[in-house]
Amino acid sequence: MEPTGTVRRPWEETASAGVSATKTLVLDGALTLASGRTIEGVQIAYETWGRLDDEGANAVLVCHALSGDSHLAGLRPGEDAGASPGWWDVMVGPGKAIDTERFFVVCCNVLGGCSGSTGPSSIDPATGRPWGLRFPLVTVEDMVDAQARLLQAIGVHRLLAVVGGSMGGMQALAWAKRYPERVGSVVADATTWRLGAQAIAFNEVGRRAILEDPAFAHGDYYDRDAQPESGLGIARMIGHITYLSDESMHQKFGRRLQASANYAYDFVSEFQVESYLAYQGARFVERFDANTYLYMTKAMDYFDLQGDAPSLPEALRGVSARFLVLSFSSDWLFSTARSRELVAALRENGTEATFAEIPSAYGHDAFLLEPEAQHRLIAPFLENGLKRLRRSTEVG
Amino acid sequence: MEPTGTVRRPWEETASAGVSATKTLVLDGALTLASGRTIEGVQIAYETWGRLDDEGANAVLVCHALSGDSHLAGLRPGEDAGASPGWWDVMVGPGKAIDTERFFVVCCNVLGGCSGSTGPSSIDPATGRPWGLRFPLVTVEDMVDAQARLLQAIGVHRLLAVVGGSMGGMQALAWAKRYPERVGSVVADATTWRLGAQAIAFNEVGRRAILEDPAFAHGDYYDRDAQPESGLGIARMIGHITYLSDESMHQKFGRRLQASANYAYDFVSEFQVESYLAYQGARFVERFDANTYLYMTKAMDYFDLQGDAPSLPEALRGVSARFLVLSFSSDWLFSTARSRELVAALRENGTEATFAEIPSAYGHDAFLLEPEAQHRLIAPFLENGLKRLRRSTEVG
Repeated sequence: MEPTGTVRRPWEETASAGVSATKTLVLDGALTLASGRTIEGVQIAYETWGRLDDEGANAVLVCHALSGDSHLAGLRPGEDAGASPGWWDVMVGPGKAIDTERFFVVCCNVLGGCSGSTGPSSIDPATGRPWGLRFPLVTVEDMVDAQARLLQAIGVHRLLAVVGGSMGGMQALAWAKRYPERVGSVVADATTWRLGAQAIAFNEVGRRAILEDPAFAHGDYYDRDAQPESGLGIARMIGHITYLSDESMHQKFGRRLQASANYAYDFVSEFQVESYLAYQGARFVERFDANTYLYMTKAMDYFDLQGDAPSLPEALRGVSARFLVLSFSSDWLFSTARSRELVAALRENGTEATFAEIPSAYGHDAFLLEPEAQHRLIAPFLENGLKRLRRSTEVG
Repeated sequence: MEPTGTVRRPWEETASAGVSATKTLVLDGALTLASGRTIEGVQIAYETWGRLDDEGANAVLVCHALSGDSHLAGLRPGEDAGASPGWWDVMVGPGKAIDTERFFVVCCNVLGGCSGSTGPSSIDPATGRPWGLRFPLVTVEDMVDAQARLLQAIGVHRLLAVVGGSMGGMQALAWAKRYPERVGSVVADATTWRLGAQAIAFNEVGRRAILEDPAFAHGDYYDRDAQPESGLGIARMIGHITYLSDESMHQKFGRRLQASANYAYDFVSEFQVESYLAYQGARFVERFDANTYLYMTKAMDYFDLQGDAPSLPEALRGVSARFLVLSFSSDWLFSTARSRELVAALRENGTEATFAEIPSAYGHDAFLLEPEAQHRLIAPFLENGLKRLRRSTEVG
């Protein structure tokens, strides 16, 4: 952690060869949330790749999804080449769709997160104990406000683009509406302008599994032996099913059994899909905080780009960014139909919006698993954004 | 309960005016299950409507789904007119799709159930305590074998038709394959010849929620104060989402809040869809047994009409019934595509199979909520079956 308000030049510290260290910054003063509550001393964990150019024109903010963190790409210092790289390494790096040799890329752990940014697992300075459920609920807009403050503090005053998938895409959309003067382009990838009842319902069942796990202890489990592993694992299993498609699950698992050619006639996991989900649930519990899971899903449920406006186009009147909206054909959680509504609203306002539905069997997870198709669409979109910006600067 | 092996004439007891009492029968001897285990003294709860004709030609067996019971239609003795009728009352009764003035209708609680038939909540005679998880796992075929024994015992030697939706449809399909000489027609409604990975995955997460609920106590919760209400409620909530469609949830709930115009910024249910699911979960816990939920979902997961045969048509070679296969356009759990596979396999064998996809926004629940469209298809199908049977009897 560094002193409050120090202006950093993070690109001077960007390590080479794809290694990125997590930095942290404490925001000056209080952050006022959508709920009206305020948090003092908000810490944001972030990483950067590449170098900000002299005009400050090539900054790209990448926003992460529910379970992500600031470790977007490459390795962490000290990791050897066999370690898993960042969560979107297929998309971000030298020569990749988001080219770190051309762009200065920033990714930060969201407000409410559990990977270095202030969230329910952080220490509440008023009590000296973890916040737990006393942490105020945060919205996607609150996350974006914290990011805006962070960027200001590290000298990034304008974003060439905000890019995000899933909850990260919600942040990208919120950026365009909330800070129109600071965002040139938006890539809204496998996302939605608001969740429907079915997605809220899945989130709620996951939350119930956590809240009703006795080991959850009303959110105060940090200093206990028992941890809400069951509840968080179940929530993750539900989530995982919704991130895949019926088709990809069929291809990957079908009705194959894990260990035997015949049914075992007991309640131990025996279909491969059951073992896979159990494994995903168990792995998630090792790296993620149950309280943060509650806060992230609630922020997604609350997100509604229309807000109090009478229609989506009216809500988007002040938006000046250009948009690339991407959906995936088998993504039933963040559907093409909902993406088309967003594109139609933008175009009704005369806002430039390019839309593509990428054919894929991978469901919602496709944004993590289909780098080639996304590269073909995102790379020229960012490049054109940079060209236009430089042309307008020359003219101006 | 009545003595083992007594031959009953249940239609002589069928009450008039839509009132039906649950009867029970204990099967003679042991029932051998697919797992190889046997159960002695299996009790089956059943109800009947209408009257078996003198030729014994007009019997229709209706099979229930996961959470159903023998109370198919009408009221129970002593209930006043305001009480909720049986679970398929919209379809079964005088003048309805399954006309109790023309057909002798039987419905029984499945083996493994918790509404009068032997299941994990029954007393294990060997210990004098409820079976719990020591109850052997049952398959759809085991359920059908128990039904076949029951029908034999009550003097129903041949079925004009077996009709069922969802897991009830699986039973209808198993009947046609297992007892071809005893089944004239099959109505396979909103069902599948086997579940895919996604449906197994949803079932498994529901089972995990129950098995990992500390109050579940490895299935021995019957004499305890704490009951596995949380786990069973969560399992039911997951199930409920899969029974509805995104469209019907959108129409029914959208993003409407339950109690306020504004977000509450807490983790109490606040979207209407959340309150609805919580209510469904809580209601279900009052009437259903957590162990039976495990056994029913596992039976569904195991069901595979193809079995060890190299293909579905080969598995269905010996089937002689005629089929009416119905699916619903928005049912993503038991999809039209899977129903078409079944119809294609039947037709490849030259088996008579009529197929219809009924347009509906109600998802899987449509088979409970779309009586008119089902009436138009099922009533003439049953009537034709009866006509043909009588014609063949006259000719013979």
